[in-house]
Amino acid sequence: MKSIFELPMTVRDYECDLQGIVNNAVYQNYLEHARHEFLHSIGLDFSQWHEEGKDALVIRAELDYKQSLQPGDRFLVRLEVVKKGNLKIDFLQEIFRLSDDKTCLNARVSSVVMTNNRPLSNAIFFDVLDENGIEYRKEN
Amino acid sequence: MKSIFELPMTVRDYECDLQGIVNNAVYQNYLEHARHEFLHSIGLDFSQWHEEGKDALVIRAELDYKQSLQPGDRFLVRLEVVKKGNLKIDFLQEIFRLSDDKTCLNARVSSVVMTNNRPLSNAIFFDVLDENGIEYRKEN
Amino acid sequence: MKSIFELPMTVRDYECDLQGIVNNAVYQNYLEHARHEFLHSIGLDFSQWHEEGKDALVIRAELDYKQSLQPGDRFLVRLEVVKKGNLKIDFLQEIFRLSDDKTCLNARVSSVVMTNNRPLSNAIFFDVLDENGIEYRKEN
Amino acid sequence: MKSIFELPMTVRDYECDLQGIVNNAVYQNYLEHARHEFLHSIGLDFSQWHEEGKDALVIRAELDYKQSLQPGDRFLVRLEVVKKGNLKIDFLQEIFRLSDDKTCLNARVSSVVMTNNRPLSNAIFFDVLDENGIEYRKEN
Repeated sequence: MKSIFELPMTVRDYECDLQGIVNNAVYQNYLEHARHEFLHSIGLDFSQWHEEGKDALVIRAELDYKQSLQPGDRFLVRLEVVKKGNLKIDFLQEIFRLSDDKTCLNARVSSVVMTNNRPLSNAIFFDVLDENGIEYRKEN
Repeated sequence: MKSIFELPMTVRDYECDLQGIVNNAVYQNYLEHARHEFLHSIGLDFSQWHEEGKDALVIRAELDYKQSLQPGDRFLVRLEVVKKGNLKIDFLQEIFRLSDDKTCLNARVSSVVMTNNRPLSNAIFFDVLDENGIEYRKEN
Repeated sequence: MKSIFELPMTVRDYECDLQGIVNNAVYQNYLEHARHEFLHSIGLDFSQWHEEGKDALVIRAELDYKQSLQPGDRFLVRLEVVKKGNLKIDFLQEIFRLSDDKTCLNARVSSVVMTNNRPLSNAIFFDVLDENGIEYRKEN
Repeated sequence: MKSIFELPMTVRDYECDLQGIVNNAVYQNYLEHARHEFLHSIGLDFSQWHEEGKDALVIRAELDYKQSLQPGDRFLVRLEVVKKGNLKIDFLQEIFRLSDDKTCLNARVSSVVMTNNRPLSNAIFFDVLDENGIEYRKEN
């Protein structure tokens, strides 16, 4: 993938379940954290948006689990952005393990920004990307 | 959906994030718990499988978020099973809110059972369904 | 303990960590959920308080871990209340396993209700207990 | 405190609950992660111990919540060790926020290492500290 942001992270033992590997749900935590850190890197803030009455909501997530992360694994969460029509913001994300250069997860996470139960134009987000000179793909 | 199992659950406040709604990752916890309770209901045990060296692993999850669960919401997690070829066990799952009869999430979760890094035939699971007279769909 | 409320719960597999037992932090989730369900039972609502600008905050927790909860364990979370001076609300809590009648955890959780960074009189809580005829201890 | 180890961490948005602050239970995750990273730093491994049949178990935790961590807060988890008799390993821990130099949490976490349901001598741990020239206090 043509990653525009990557966040290094480390598995924490409490994130592993009784199988001794990272629990499936925790990968969504990793993905969310990387998206929010990406927002921060371009001056946007998920929690501040909430206080202003704008809530970014995930509407669909597709997650392909390839390899199980284990205690102590270090990995990158990579991210690419897709402008999907005028409302959706899609994130293509990869979890890439550093010890063996293996992709552990591929994901596509679709989101919209809502205010008063109505979706906002995704320009709220892509205008900031444009200002920062950050590349993204467009899909209909 | 033609549900063969349903588990009533209630949102716990700590499962909600700063948006005041259930965090996206937590839905996967709900789905997993319902699957494991379904296994219990037919005499199978996820944690015992692990101790015997057989690990059920999610390989893909598709999650469509329709409505946000909120503090105190009561809901059902419904479940249907699909025999996908000879290896995959797919779960179609729905989270259905009881206060307004709304679907909050639809999901398809694909899994395999691994032992020594090799997938087992899904007969280990579907034979038990057959013995219990539980219906499921077949896909190639 | 002289319990005034008890909530039956079941261990969920994802709450267990790589030791195959419930992770230490999860017990605090159980305790919090039982406290909030107790509040509900007397007509109070933690999340509504937050929206009204009143936030119940834990200021101290003492947790004695006696036995480890395991996958599938059914247990009660029991609760007793102590009026500690004019500000603090203390909860004595016990996690009691049903399969072998063993206490798995004893806890004392001290809390205050804050508004605009100042503690409110705990009358906001104990008046409601009085109205409901619920017994509690008093300590200085 | 006379810290012998400190781990820098950052609050992740999903760790915050509907009050918009880090949930009480999550602090135990932070403390555990810092303890396990400290173990790693002296060549010990919590998950490997488990595989060898030795399980470090928390038997008591005292947590004093001083300030609430908020989205984006950066903090240190500091750690000091106490040899408590011949069995217990006590950790004194502090969560220290970097933006305002405030202590957010003080904690004392007591643990033992168990094997086959019996506690091991804490020499298994303190001998390694001695080899590494790491200071610790002794209490009876």
